[in-house]
Parts: sequence; structure tokens; C-alpha cells
Amino acid sequence: MIYLDNAATTKVKDEVVDAMVEMLTKYYGNPSSVYDFAMESKKRMEEARKIIGRGLNVDPEEIYFTSCGSESNNLAILGSITGNQRDEYLFTDMEHSSVKKAYEILGKDKKIQIIHGDEGVLDPSKVIDGVNENTRLVSVMHVNNELGNIQDIETIGRGIKGKNPKTLFHVDGIQGFGKIFLDIERAKVDFYTMSAHKIHGPKGVGALYMRKGLELNPRIVGGGQEKAMSSGTENTAGIVGFGVAAKKALENREENYKKVQYLKDEMIKALMEIPHIHILSHKNSSPYILSVAIKDIKGEVLLHYLEDQKIYISTGSACHKGRKSEITKALGLEDGYGEGVIRISFHGGQDISVVHEFMKVAKPSIEEIRQIMGGIHG
Amino acid sequence: MIYLDNAATTKVKDEVVDAMVEMLTKYYGNPSSVYDFAMESKKRMEEARKIIGRGLNVDPEEIYFTSCGSESNNLAILGSITGNQRDEYLFTDMEHSSVKKAYEILGKDKKIQIIHGDEGVLDPSKVIDGVNENTRLVSVMHVNNELGNIQDIETIGRGIKGKNPKTLFHVDGIQGFGKIFLDIERAKVDFYTMSAHKIHGPKGVGALYMRKGLELNPRIVGGGQEKAMSSGTENTAGIVGFGVAAKKALENREENYKKVQYLKDEMIKALMEIPHIHILSHKNSSPYILSVAIKDIKGEVLLHYLEDQKIYISTGSACHKGRKSEITKALGLEDGYGEGVIRISFHGGQDISVVHEFMKVAKPSIEEIRQIMGGIHG
Repeated sequence: MIYLDNAATTKVKDEVVDAMVEMLTKYYGNPSSVYDFAMESKKRMEEARKIIGRGLNVDPEEIYFTSCGSESNNLAILGSITGNQRDEYLFTDMEHSSVKKAYEILGKDKKIQIIHGDEGVLDPSKVIDGVNENTRLVSVMHVNNELGNIQDIETIGRGIKGKNPKTLFHVDGIQGFGKIFLDIERAKVDFYTMSAHKIHGPKGVGALYMRKGLELNPRIVGGGQEKAMSSGTENTAGIVGFGVAAKKALENREENYKKVQYLKDEMIKALMEIPHIHILSHKNSSPYILSVAIKDIKGEVLLHYLEDQKIYISTGSACHKGRKSEITKALGLEDGYGEGVIRISFHGGQDISVVHEFMKVAKPSIEEIRQIMGGIHG
Repeated sequence: MIYLDNAATTKVKDEVVDAMVEMLTKYYGNPSSVYDFAMESKKRMEEARKIIGRGLNVDPEEIYFTSCGSESNNLAILGSITGNQRDEYLFTDMEHSSVKKAYEILGKDKKIQIIHGDEGVLDPSKVIDGVNENTRLVSVMHVNNELGNIQDIETIGRGIKGKNPKTLFHVDGIQGFGKIFLDIERAKVDFYTMSAHKIHGPKGVGALYMRKGLELNPRIVGGGQEKAMSSGTENTAGIVGFGVAAKKALENREENYKKVQYLKDEMIKALMEIPHIHILSHKNSSPYILSVAIKDIKGEVLLHYLEDQKIYISTGSACHKGRKSEITKALGLEDGYGEGVIRISFHGGQDISVVHEFMKVAKPSIEEIRQIMGGIHG
């Protein structure tokens, strides 16, 4: 199997599994219980918090575990609602659905502004210009999940705070954490969203960095776990697994970055040998994500050709077909590219063989699909 | 170790761990992806849904996975809010904090009624009397987590619907599911809350039964997972683990019930040999939970005496000290019992040795604590 859909989710590392199994079978106490046996599970959970806090260069006390990145995004956005009718919110049209849906809910009562990112890259000045004395919160994605484009969070964050120091700045770091460094302090980020399953941790665990002194209304209320930011008995195995995964990712971040950059570069080189292919990912994009538009094919059809040979990629985010042709148009590409967008996403443990194996199947598949679809030949 | 705090959480079964490890390392695809490899993880997740649906004797389509029982409770209650200002809500003073906190939020805008359960048992007629033409939702716990008392859900549900067929009926079944049978259909339950980690499944997974045709506003919005009732990439390992745990619990429900009933009866017999001890659990209570008031001791002190010998119990729910002395008073117990409440909770894999081991340490510990505290001697 050649798994090139690591932006969708990743295989859980053996070390992570081992740590989780230990929590499930040995340290299974409820962290809210007061006896020593249960304290052991709490202690291990707090270790995970330290790893993540240190990795972000923040106080571990500022890390809150949640059930997923979507809860973290919802918490930052919907949790920031106040009774002030003048509050305004600002977001971009490139956000994840867990941000977009939260803003749709907000939009029923509050004024919201949507900033358009041309070609999938945000002009920081457009965001900063949108901030006024009533702006309560701005949300910008760190690394775009479809194109991999890295937004200039530092310029945006400093610009926002320069204009209105009270405006809160939320950054969805789901595709960034453990992969692309962000200086939370310099970028003046108030909330940063993370997810375990994008970095070889388990599904069902997320985290939110929240700057000290801030408060949010939780999405899940009850026993007051995570300082009341996300109630419910803690997913101790998942949290500890997240910690181990984060440790590995953070320790190897620079090395992995170089490795996947090489893979991405080689993949681009190989793809460029096929005529009428356009790289959609911006030059300043995450090496982990490569978005490509292939003329006169359907991305879904290529995906199934590859699937037959146990090669797995994505067509981007399944629900955003309209948006893809929008991006290809914004990039000045002629008709025929809009349906042929695919996303190839790597992980740090892969080597050059994945590029060769992918190309061995992709090249003839693209030719065949083009012939069948009656477009370009060859 | 003698673990007698199974109402707080349980050890995860080996079969559950094996199924989870397989999901983490082999079937790690994202269920939202469209290729065969990811379909495998979706398929396994749907198997879990079937097991739980069948166990409740409902359509598996009516089961929604969540991140925990608290999310399920929040979803049923806060998700049922409408814009109708006349809506009223009714709950009891014996509910879990994830129900109580949700009602506190509701109470800011809506009329809420709180029904008092004398001696920890609800008089169904008091609930039914509270229902009127504006009652939107009633929440009643199936099995109380502190005392183990089983509420007469069927009489309550049929009574509610007889008075107002439009009133929604939510039952928190976290301590009931897989242990105490409830006929969802006969009891006219609309929402039933479940949690994996109370039945030897992992922490971080819950479920909500929602009757077909009903709708709720989700607590977590985004990618639309779980038919948009709980967004975020599914915790596939946790869900599959929940399924395996539920299968075991449901298959062995009656046998386990008898086994723990025997343990509870024997424990009560043994405890009654100590003077000035009162059983708080009602005669119609879950055999899994035994609540005991011990005169002239502090529950926390006994807990730590036991802990030294690796025996683990609870003092009830840590945050409800005031409530316990309230219950002991309601039961007509004299002063001196209020501080000495402990909760002993079993699981189906335990045998009579846990009673002997517990008593071997508990009896002299109670005597010693009473001597130190200067109360009753002997």
C-alpha cells in the first residue's frame, strides 16, 4: 500500500499504540478520582500537556485537551460569543468546515466579514484592513488543508493587534502543528487548534492553546474537566497517545520537513513530465501537501484507478468541488482543469519509492482517462 | 489491587484493546475518504453501531456516536432548544453534572422545573404532574451514579407522553446501558445516553440514541459526521472498542447481573456486622452500585486507609458532599452519618474474594478511624 493521504489522517505510530494500551489496561483510573492509582493516569495525561505546551513554546497550563480539532475550532469561535451586539467577526473563505459552520451559526446574530484569499493565499493587509474597534475575533488557518498554503500568521497577528489589541486571534493549526513552526508569541495568537490524528496520534483527540487570562464558554459542560473548557471523563489513552505522537513529531520536525520537501519536489518534477499539469500549491506551502490540477481528467476517476493498485490519494476535500474549479480559475487556468484536482500528502517516514510507485501507476492512468474522456491524447 | 470503583470507570477488556489496536494500525483510514481502504474503517464503525442498536432493540440508524456521555447529555438537552419562548424544561435534582450544567445554561432563558427525589428515588407522579402543554423536554437518570437507584423510567415515560405527546423524554443511561435492561420503546424514551468507559470500553467515546424523525442542534459542527449530530473525524478505534465492549456486556448482561447481585448482597451482609452502618442504596437499585453511610467516620479517611492496601472505592461523586448529608437526613439518619458515605461499585468479572479482601481491611480501618475521631468505639 502507498498511502498518500496523510493530510486526511495518518497511521498511528507503534510507540503511540504502546502508550495507549498501557493506559487502557494498566492506568485506567478516572483522573477525577482522588486515590493514588487514578493519580497515575492524571500524571501521564499532564506529561502529554507538557510535551505539547513546550512544543508550542507556551505554558502547558495554556493547553486544553478536547475531543477533536473541530471541537477546538468551535470552542474558540462559538465560545467567544458575548452579549455585546456590536461584536463583529472576521474569517476567510479558505477555512475548514468546523470554522465555517461555527461562523454560519454566529452570522445569525452577529456581523461577520469574509475575506477572500486569492489563489488560496491570504493578503495580510486585507485581513488587517477588516479589523475595527468592534472586531471580537479573527480566524485564519495556518496551513490550508486542500492546497497546503502557509498563511503569513505573524504579519496578520501583529497587524490585527496593532489595530485593535482587544481583538482575539484564532489560528487553526491542524495541518501545521508538529510540521510547520509557528511562534505563537511573536504572531500574537490567542487560540491555536491542534489534532492528534494528523501527526500519527489517535483519532478522537484534539487540543486548543488558549492564552493565559482568556476565557471561553465550553461546548461540553458537566464535571468541569480541562478547567471546565471541555467536560467529560478525559480520553486518557488518547491524550497520552497524542503526547507521544507530538513528542516524535516535534523532535523530528526539521528532519521530517526536509525529507518530505524532497519527496514533494521530486513528485512535482515527475508530474511535470506529463503535459498539461499545473501545481496549485503556492511556492510557500507545506511540503506535506501537494495539490495538482490535471487537465481533462476527473480527479475521482484517477483516484479509483490508483485505488485499484492500492495507492491512496484524495481529490482535496470531498465537499468542495465547486471551490476547486474556483481556485483553478483564479489561477488563470483554462477550462478542463477544474475537475482534475488531486491532493497528494506525505508523512515523514516515507521515502522516494512512494514517488516512483505513484508515478508508475498515475502516468498511464492519466493517459488512459484522457483517452476515454476524449480530451488531450498523450 | 481490589478495584471497587467501577461506577467511576472500568478497566478496558483485552478483546476491546485488540480491536482498537487493529483500528489504530491497520484500518486507520479516515471514514470520510472515498476509497476502499478507508471504507474498511467505516464498515467496522458501522458494525459497532449495529451492536449498540440491537442491544437497545432500536434501529442502528438511531445511534449517534459522540465524544463522551457528557456530550450526549448536552446534545439531547441544549440541542433541543427552540426559539419558542414558552418552552419549559423539567429535570430532577439527582442528575449528573453534564445534565445539571446544561439546565443551568437553559435556565437563563427558559422556565425550568426541578423535581426532588426523596431518598434518591423519584416518585413518577411528581414528574408527570410537572408536565404541561409547554413542556419541551424532561430529563431523568436511569440508574443514579451515586446511590445506584433505578428510576421507574417506563411509568415516567408513559405518563409524560400521556399528558403531552409532544414532550421529549431524555434518559441518561450511562450507569444503566449494558447492565440494567430498559425497553426504550415501551418507556417511550426519545434520547438515551450511553458511555463506553463504564462497560470496559475506552474513555472518550459515548453515544446517543435519538428516536427516528427527531432532530437536534449539534454541540460540535463541521464536517457533518454522525449525520451532522457530532462533527469531527470519527474516533474509529474508540467506536469499534465501544462496540466490542457493548457486545460483551449485552451478551453477559443477565449472568453479570446475578454475579454482582450476589457480591452486593454478600457485601451488605458483611458490612451489617459492623455497628452503625446504613445502606443508602434503595432496594430497587443496580447491583453494580452500593452506597453506604458509616457513622462517625469520614469517607475520605476510610478511602485513604483502603488505598494504602491497594483497595479502591469512592466517596460518591467528589463534588457532592453537601448532597450526601442531605440524603442521609432524608433517610432519617441521625447526625454523624453525613460525612461517612462511601460508594462501592462492582464489575461482572469479580468474585467473592473482593468482598473478603475489602472487609479484611475495611473493618479494622473503620474501628481505628472511629477511635481517632472519638466517636463510637468498636
